[in-house]
This record gives sequence, structure tokens and C-alpha cells, in this order.
Amino acid sequence: MEIKVLKDILNANNQIAEQNRQLLTSKHVMAINLMSSPGSGKTTLIMRTVEQLKSRARIAVIEGDVSSSIDAEKLGQVGITAVQINTGGGCHLDASMVNSALASLPLDDIDILFIENVGNLICPGGFDLGEYLRVVILSTPEGDDKPHKYPLLFSQANALVVNKTDLLPHVGFDMEAFVRVFQGLNQQAALFKVSGITGDGIEDWGEWVMINLQKLRTQNSTR
Amino acid sequence: MEIKVLKDILNANNQIAEQNRQLLTSKHVMAINLMSSPGSGKTTLIMRTVEQLKSRARIAVIEGDVSSSIDAEKLGQVGITAVQINTGGGCHLDASMVNSALASLPLDDIDILFIENVGNLICPGGFDLGEYLRVVILSTPEGDDKPHKYPLLFSQANALVVNKTDLLPHVGFDMEAFVRVFQGLNQQAALFKVSGITGDGIEDWGEWVMINLQKLRTQNSTR
Repeated sequence: MEIKVLKDILNANNQIAEQNRQLLTSKHVMAINLMSSPGSGKTTLIMRTVEQLKSRARIAVIEGDVSSSIDAEKLGQVGITAVQINTGGGCHLDASMVNSALASLPLDDIDILFIENVGNLICPGGFDLGEYLRVVILSTPEGDDKPHKYPLLFSQANALVVNKTDLLPHVGFDMEAFVRVFQGLNQQAALFKVSGITGDGIEDWGEWVMINLQKLRTQNSTR
Repeated sequence: MEIKVLKDILNANNQIAEQNRQLLTSKHVMAINLMSSPGSGKTTLIMRTVEQLKSRARIAVIEGDVSSSIDAEKLGQVGITAVQINTGGGCHLDASMVNSALASLPLDDIDILFIENVGNLICPGGFDLGEYLRVVILSTPEGDDKPHKYPLLFSQANALVVNKTDLLPHVGFDMEAFVRVFQGLNQQAALFKVSGITGDGIEDWGEWVMINLQKLRTQNSTR
């Protein structure tokens, strides 16, 4: 019975995710579902990316948090359009929450939509939001063993961003071991090593985002 | 219907948690439910605590992870009795999982049982395991805004351990702001600032653990 209910929830979620995907495609918006542990630097990465790409793409953000609107306010202060979703206890965004947020965004004026999921390495994995890309961030202080412990999220990612490389001299993060384990789970994903604080490595990441936007536009124009 | 099912699950969990609590009390074992984000340093804190207290208390560990047995192996290598639970996707331990683990531990020879919950700042909050104390760890690279975003876990803690203070010079963690927000949510909790790497502050934390063990023993002897 428990399993039945869970299946119903997932089916309903997938249907709404498909609606979100169709709406985003029709508006030529590329949505990126950004997932990580709490405090690994999702918001800072978004701010850096906007800084780099603002002359080439119009970027907006959906912010997911259990509680508070700190991140949406932080983005708003630097002029980034952001809608906050509070899950009120839930450990992930779902397609229906994103659907509501989409209704309040000017989709005709957006090229890239970052969806910052709730800080969690487990729950977001099961819920399609209608995104075009899934990106996982891992910060170096969290340790290189995380793909072992949380395989689902890492195995689903289109890109993996190792953030806080500026802290590498101060934390015991074995990059070689990490890459080996991660690529054992996921050979397709692009891999970026960045520092949201110094800006190191952000350019390569930003270019990858732009290449994907170009790809999406080509797909749309040949439909 | 969904809510009804969730309520049934929580009721069932609470009943088993109560059985765990009675069993642990009858064996004079103090269980500490240790909760935090992934990679904030739970296992290292446990190892440091054992190092400090090993001549005064017999300590064992239940390790909770979605997948892998890395942490239990790490503890086993330094001679600490540890039982690994894999939740297989679940974002928290529940009382029934802990109940099974208790059956395989030599409870007559244990004074303190650390239960290292799944790395997650959200899900573990709803599930009583039968513990005597709830302790939340936050590492400085995660940022000082976490109590705003994840209020439930922080508000329930008997103690809060701020870990990785060695990284304070390298991360933008405002300790004063953090303490203010945290104490706004929770005025009862003890607060410790430690570094699992340098050992700084571990002694005060260890003494707090011993004081609580003494308190539990006094309660038991006057029953």
C-alpha cells in the first residue's frame, strides 16, 4: 500500500514534469536542475554564471528551500530574477511546485532557467522537474567519498561541478580518487573543477552551459 | 490518504523507538543520534570522541548510509565496534532499522552508542530512533545561514557542534551571526566549536557527553 501510494505520487509528478518540459521547450527556455548538499555553493555558482553570461543569455532562477527566502533575496539584490519556493519540510522540489513557479516567471524573456533544488544529496534524485539538464555540485570539504554514499544523484548527472577548489590545500580531498569513483558511476557527464569564490574554472563551465543552450536551440529550430 | 499513510508510518516508528529506548535504558546504554549534512564530519567527530573517552566509556557506533560501508570499515580499522545500516535510497534512519542493528550489538558491553544518521539536514528530524540525545553537526564551509533554511533539525538538538573551525580563516562563516540565529531557534542546546582535524575543542564536547552519561546513570539508579 505504501509502495502503491509512492508509485502514484511519482506517476503524477512525471506527468506534470512533462507539461513543464513542453512549456519550457515552447518558450525556448533551457532549465537546469541544480542539486547538491546544503552549503556546497549552488547560489554562488549561479551568481558567477550570470556574471559571465549576462551579455549572451537572459538568466532567471527558481530557488528551492525548506524555509526562508535568503537565496532569492541574495539574487534579487544583484538584479537576478528569482522566484522562491518553500517546501515547508519537503526534502526536494517536485514538478508541481516548479509548475506554479513557472506561472510567475516571464518565460518569453528567459533563455536559461536555473532551478536550485533543496540542499539534499538524496531526495531530489527521484523527481523529474521537466528540466533539460541535471547538474550536481560537490564541494571539496564534503570529501571525495560522496559518490560511494549517494550513487543515484551522481549517476544521473549531465555535469558534475566540483566546487570550492580554493579549499583543496586545506581539506583532505583526493581529486584523483574522486574522479575515478565518479566516472565508475557515470561516464557521460562533463566534469568541472571550479571555485565560486575566486572564479577559477567558471569560464569552462559557463561555455558548457552556452553550448547546451545552442544545442537546444538547434533542436527546436529543426522540429 | 497520503497524509493518513504518513501518520501511520510515524506512529509505527514512534512505537518501535519507544521499545528501543526501553531496551537501551535497561542496558544502561546512552544513545546519541548524530545528524548533519553529507561530509560535515560526523565520523571524524566520533573517532575523536572515542580517542578522548576510551579509558572512561565503552563506545560503539551504528552507521547509517544510503549505500556503501565505508564509514563502518573506517571505524573498524581503528578498533571501534560499528554496525552499518544501508537505507537503500531512504534519506534517514528509522526506529525499525536501529532495532535490527541493536540486536547485533553487545549491549551489555556498551556505555555510549553513537547513531550516525544518513547525511541529511531534513529527513532525520521527523524520526525518533529511541535516542537519549540529539546532536546536530554543522561544518563551517556549509555557511552560517543553515538554521534559517533547515529550522526543524536545529530546533530539536540537545547540542550543536560547529565543526571544521580550522577552515574559518578560509570560508565566509560569520560565527556571531550563526550563534544569534541558532539561539533564536533553540536556547536550550549546548554549543561546541571544534575541529575534527586539529582536535581543537573536542575536550569540552567529550566532557559534555560524559556529564550526560553520568546523568543517565543517576536517573537509572534512582528508578
